[in-house]
Amino acid sequence: MKLATFEVDGEELVGALEGEELVVIDIPSMRALFELGTPVQEKAQERKTSRRYALADVKLKAPIIPKKIYHTAGNYAEHAQEGDRSNWVAEIKPWIVFFQNVDAIIGPDDAIVYPEHLTKELDYELELCAIIAKPGKFISEEDAKDYIGGYVIFNDITARDIQRREMQSSNFVFSKSIDTFCPFGPWIVTADEIPDPYNLALELRVNGEKRQVSNSSHMSVTLPQLIAKFSPTGYSAGDILTTGTVSGVAAFSADPQAWYLKPGDKIEAEIEKIGVLRNHVVSWKDAYGVDAPEFEGF
Amino acid sequence: MKLATFEVDGEELVGALEGEELVVIDIPSMRALFELGTPVQEKAQERKTSRRYALADVKLKAPIIPKKIYHTAGNYAEHAQEGDRSNWVAEIKPWIVFFQNVDAIIGPDDAIVYPEHLTKELDYELELCAIIAKPGKFISEEDAKDYIGGYVIFNDITARDIQRREMQSSNFVFSKSIDTFCPFGPWIVTADEIPDPYNLALELRVNGEKRQVSNSSHMSVTLPQLIAKFSPTGYSAGDILTTGTVSGVAAFSADPQAWYLKPGDKIEAEIEKIGVLRNHVVSWKDAYGVDAPEFEGF
Repeated sequence: MKLATFEVDGEELVGALEGEELVVIDIPSMRALFELGTPVQEKAQERKTSRRYALADVKLKAPIIPKKIYHTAGNYAEHAQEGDRSNWVAEIKPWIVFFQNVDAIIGPDDAIVYPEHLTKELDYELELCAIIAKPGKFISEEDAKDYIGGYVIFNDITARDIQRREMQSSNFVFSKSIDTFCPFGPWIVTADEIPDPYNLALELRVNGEKRQVSNSSHMSVTLPQLIAKFSPTGYSAGDILTTGTVSGVAAFSADPQAWYLKPGDKIEAEIEKIGVLRNHVVSWKDAYGVDAPEFEGF
Repeated sequence: MKLATFEVDGEELVGALEGEELVVIDIPSMRALFELGTPVQEKAQERKTSRRYALADVKLKAPIIPKKIYHTAGNYAEHAQEGDRSNWVAEIKPWIVFFQNVDAIIGPDDAIVYPEHLTKELDYELELCAIIAKPGKFISEEDAKDYIGGYVIFNDITARDIQRREMQSSNFVFSKSIDTFCPFGPWIVTADEIPDPYNLALELRVNGEKRQVSNSSHMSVTLPQLIAKFSPTGYSAGDILTTGTVSGVAAFSADPQAWYLKPGDKIEAEIEKIGVLRNHVVSWKDAYGVDAPEFEGF
């Protein structure tokens, strides 16, 4: 089942995608749906109403605003290796985890606002994410597979110049958590529809040009390994767990300045069996009608 | 005004402390109270009910479960210097920020559960925190002072052995965000009661022995500077911003093994004009009735 959050006539609704229509589910929010228990597709099925909207007539929103986003990294050797080749400031090792900014989430077709007063090096990172199905802590790898409720696409927008400075202090959270830097979507695909998440084509395009082309088979860890590893922190139903990006980011390319994102750029982040998450970059002035303010950089 | 969240007869309530009594405020949660607008003490005053409970008869809870916790660090030179003297793995610089685990929050008198399968080096860190009064982003330092709604005490429980390993990958989030590692309390003191937050005595005791003794006057940055700096991420009302710890942690002491926390230890984290946040450490077995499971370390 594909589960979306959408807005129509000023109302925010949760729906299941059937062909080109969204069937409204009687639940106040996607997180509330996940909090009902597992499997989420059965809980959604039980609450389907007779209201239907054409997908073309609604505004899709970020499918879920979770309590927590586990931002993991270092899980694709190819991305670590391109970092090494580019003399990145530190080695990219497995088992990196931090929490992302739930207030920076945007949805499909939403604008990434370029903070010209903060960064000159805006980058993209395509990532497959799991949605945590149920609460739990200190979970074994064997049990962890039951904690995957669904999948969603994440485009991990990153200010590389800030990230390099942050890494001098053993952190790189702020550079990835600026307002509008967390696009998620276009919808959640429930786990039953993707029995093998390790064989999905991944492709990110900027203005139609292929930048990241890979496959989730290149992941060096499994989702249950990630879920088990970070489970001492305690999961809530609906939490998002990202899985790290693949090779092809601008920072590690042959010509980073040419590849960094600019106002006007259109990004398509695609994962097989899930869909395409489209976002575009706008200047501060186009977003807010004023020039970017003087603001002390990070 | 001192604002507490407490439980009585199975009901969770928000109250204002008056002498030794809590006056119930008609609001579903502390975060909802902050979401009403500023100043929070006026919103609380308007919603006071005639219900009163003796402080001695209730169970205090963590005063607020915020949408986000901004964990900042590097703001006390004395803690950076003790790190340098102890040959800590990296320099402690200003402007460190990451998000803390909102699911790891515990309240006054709650137990910190020792995860014996994960760490042998459990440490404490006393911190003054600000509560963000209202939503905002890209805030100037001049405007940032209006964003302080109140103050609370945080004991930043940290597994140092894990932290050292994490810092090899430019992160140290997991080591501080394990279940029960985020005690906050005992209540929120509204900003009007502390006109000068840079002259507060800070003291943390373990089993009555003074470990951290300092003053917020030693902070090398101001709260408006911190709030402005991290504001591109966007604040929600009720967010917590920690301010970093002072010298005296176990890891940088003359005998770390003697000072690391052990089951049975009682910790008092005290800040002048706010109060004392008391927590104790319990073994896995005492907490859950079984031995700590085999669990792959981090």
